[in-house]
Amino acid sequence: MREVFVGVDLGGTNIKLGCFDGELNLLSKRTIPSRVELGPESIIERIGQNIEKMLSESGLSTKDICAFGIGSPGVMDIEAGVVIAAGNMRFENVPLRQMLSDYLGKPGVLENDANVTCWGEHVLGAGKGVDEMILITLGTGIGSGIIKNGKLVHGFNNNGVEVGHIILYPDGRMCSCGQRGCVEAYASASATAARAKEAVKSGAISSLKKVFEETGDITCKDVYKHVAQGDELAKEISDETAKALALLCVNLLHVIGPKRIVFYGGMNKAGQLLLEPIKKFFNEHIWRLKKEDVEFCSATLGADAGIIGTAALAIHALKEGKIKRQRDVSRIPIAELKKAARAALEERTKAAQPSTETD
Amino acid sequence: MREVFVGVDLGGTNIKLGCFDGELNLLSKRTIPSRVELGPESIIERIGQNIEKMLSESGLSTKDICAFGIGSPGVMDIEAGVVIAAGNMRFENVPLRQMLSDYLGKPGVLENDANVTCWGEHVLGAGKGVDEMILITLGTGIGSGIIKNGKLVHGFNNNGVEVGHIILYPDGRMCSCGQRGCVEAYASASATAARAKEAVKSGAISSLKKVFEETGDITCKDVYKHVAQGDELAKEISDETAKALALLCVNLLHVIGPKRIVFYGGMNKAGQLLLEPIKKFFNEHIWRLKKEDVEFCSATLGADAGIIGTAALAIHALKEGKIKRQRDVSRIPIAELKKAARAALEERTKAAQPSTETD
Repeated sequence: MREVFVGVDLGGTNIKLGCFDGELNLLSKRTIPSRVELGPESIIERIGQNIEKMLSESGLSTKDICAFGIGSPGVMDIEAGVVIAAGNMRFENVPLRQMLSDYLGKPGVLENDANVTCWGEHVLGAGKGVDEMILITLGTGIGSGIIKNGKLVHGFNNNGVEVGHIILYPDGRMCSCGQRGCVEAYASASATAARAKEAVKSGAISSLKKVFEETGDITCKDVYKHVAQGDELAKEISDETAKALALLCVNLLHVIGPKRIVFYGGMNKAGQLLLEPIKKFFNEHIWRLKKEDVEFCSATLGADAGIIGTAALAIHALKEGKIKRQRDVSRIPIAELKKAARAALEERTKAAQPSTETD
Repeated sequence: MREVFVGVDLGGTNIKLGCFDGELNLLSKRTIPSRVELGPESIIERIGQNIEKMLSESGLSTKDICAFGIGSPGVMDIEAGVVIAAGNMRFENVPLRQMLSDYLGKPGVLENDANVTCWGEHVLGAGKGVDEMILITLGTGIGSGIIKNGKLVHGFNNNGVEVGHIILYPDGRMCSCGQRGCVEAYASASATAARAKEAVKSGAISSLKKVFEETGDITCKDVYKHVAQGDELAKEISDETAKALALLCVNLLHVIGPKRIVFYGGMNKAGQLLLEPIKKFFNEHIWRLKKEDVEFCSATLGADAGIIGTAALAIHALKEGKIKRQRDVSRIPIAELKKAARAALEERTKAAQPSTETD
C-alpha cells in the first residue's frame, strides 16, 4: 500500500491539486477552475471528486490517503481550520479543513497561501535546508512567508505575516490597504507597471511609450523587457522597485534575521534583472555594524510550490503528532458538509472550554 | 531552605544585582559600578562577592542559589553563553555564563539586555499575561525585545532584534549604525534632543532657545517639559518622534502581530505626552483592512526590569529543563575563571560535533 499525501492550493481563479507519496514524490497533479460563485460546498466537492479521479487513475483510492494540506488566501484561524474571510474566494467563516476532512474521511491541516508557498520552497526549493528564510511573493500584491528555527511564523491570531504593508515611504503612494507608502505600493508587479504607466502618461521619454500607445497598457513584464533593451526610464522604474525591496529586506533583517530571502511570483521571471539591483541597493543601505551575509535568490518550484508545501505540511503535522492517522470514516453528504463541520467545531470548542488557565 | 534565584543586569556604567525567591519576591538588590576597564574577571569577581554579601545579610549563602540569569549588552552566542562583542563592556569573546557559573558553583543563563528587560516586564510588569508583546526601549538608542507565543524571539545567530534600525525615511538622517533614515535617528531620546537643538540653532522660535543659551544643551527631558508648557516647536519635535514610533509600530504589527507594545527607558517618563501622540499617529497610519486592537503602554518596573527578567529567565530555564539543579562544585580561582570557562566551552563544542545532521 502506498501512503498518499494530498496538497490543495486554493486561488480565486484556479485550484491546484497534487497527490504525493511520503517522500514528496509527485504521483499526479491537476488544476481545476475555482468557480467561487458556486460556494464552498461545491469547491470541496469538486476538490474531492478530482482527487478521487487522480488517485483511481494511479490505481489508488482515498483509502490510501494519509492526510491532506489545504492552503487558502484570507484571514483564518489555523488551529480551528476555519477561513474567517477571503474576499476573492467568497469565504466567510468557512470550516474548510473539517469540510474536506469529512469528504475524504481523512485528517488534514489548513494554512495560508503565502505560508504554503514558503514551506514548499523550504522543503524542496530555493530554501531547502535553510531554517531561517523569508519568501517574498511579487504579484498583484506583495505577500510573504517567514520560517524561523525551521518553523512557519504566524502573526497574532494566526494571521499571515504582511510584509507588503511595511511602510517605507511615510505619506507616500496610496496602497490598496488604506495605508500610504507601503512597499507593496511601490514594488509589487502591479505597482511597478503602474509607476511606468504614470511616467509615460506624464510625457517621460521611453521605448515603453510605443507599448502604451499600441496596447493601452504597460505590464511589469514590459518594464523588465525594456530594461533588458536598455531603456532608461524602464531602468529607473525597476531601480525604484529594487530599492524598495532592498529596504524591505534591510528592515526584515533587523527584525527576523533571515539567512536567505527567496523571491517568488510572476515578476520573479525577470531573474537577475530583478535580483542584481536588489543586492546592490541592499549593500548600499545596510548598516556597517557587522557584516550581514544574507543570500538573495529566486524561487525554483514555480506554480507547484503551493501543492508541494501543503502536502509537506500534512506530512509534517503527522510526524509532529498534530494530526493522527485515521481509517476511513463514513462520508458526510455534500449538502451537510458545512453544517456538520460547524457542529464538530463547536463541540471541539466546547470541549476545550474547561481548560482555561488557572495561573 | 529557601530557593534563591539571582538576576544580574550588566551595563557600561553600573551592574544591578538582585536575589529573588522562586516566586520572584525580591530578597535584596544592589547596584555596583561596572569598572569595565578592570576586565571581565574583575567584573565576575565583584558580582560574585556582592551576591555572597547580599545573601549572607539575609542569612543565606551561595549554597541556597538554584540558578542565575545574566543580561549583557552586545552581540552574543546565547546557547554557548558567550558575549562575542560588547563595546561599552569591553567584552570580546567572553564566556560570561560559564565564568559566573564557575564562581558561584551554580548553573545559569545568558541573555541580551533588551530581552531581559522585556522578559521582566512580561512576567511582572506592563506585559504580564500577554504572550504577544514587544518592548521598545527609548534611550540613547532604540532597543527592543519581542515575545511571541510566550517566548523570546532572537535574530539569526541569536542576535537581539534590532527594531531601532528599521529604515523609515530612506536616505534620511544619518544613524550611528551607518544606515540612513533609521527610526533610531529620529525617535530615540538622543535623536529627539538633537533635532530640537538643530532647530533652535537654525533660528526656530521656541522657549527651548533660552535653555540652549543657558546650558549649551537641550535634552529630551527639556523637550517634553516644553511640550507640557505649550511650546510649539517642542510639540513639533515630539510629534515627529511620535510619528516615527507610530510608523515603527505599524511595521512591527505587520511582521510580528503584537497584542501589546510597551515603551521603556528614560524618555518614557514623558508618559501620556509620549503615548497619546503615538496612538494618534498609529491610528492615522494603520491600514483599514481589519481593525487592529494593539495596546500601547508604559513599562512599570523601572530600573528593576533587568534583574527581575534575568532571575525569571533562570527560573524558566530550570522549569523547562534547559539547566539542571546542581550542588556546589569546587570553586575555580578567579585568575583562571576565563581560561577554565573557555576550556569547558571547547570541550562542549567538541562533544557536540558528532551530532551533525545526516538527513
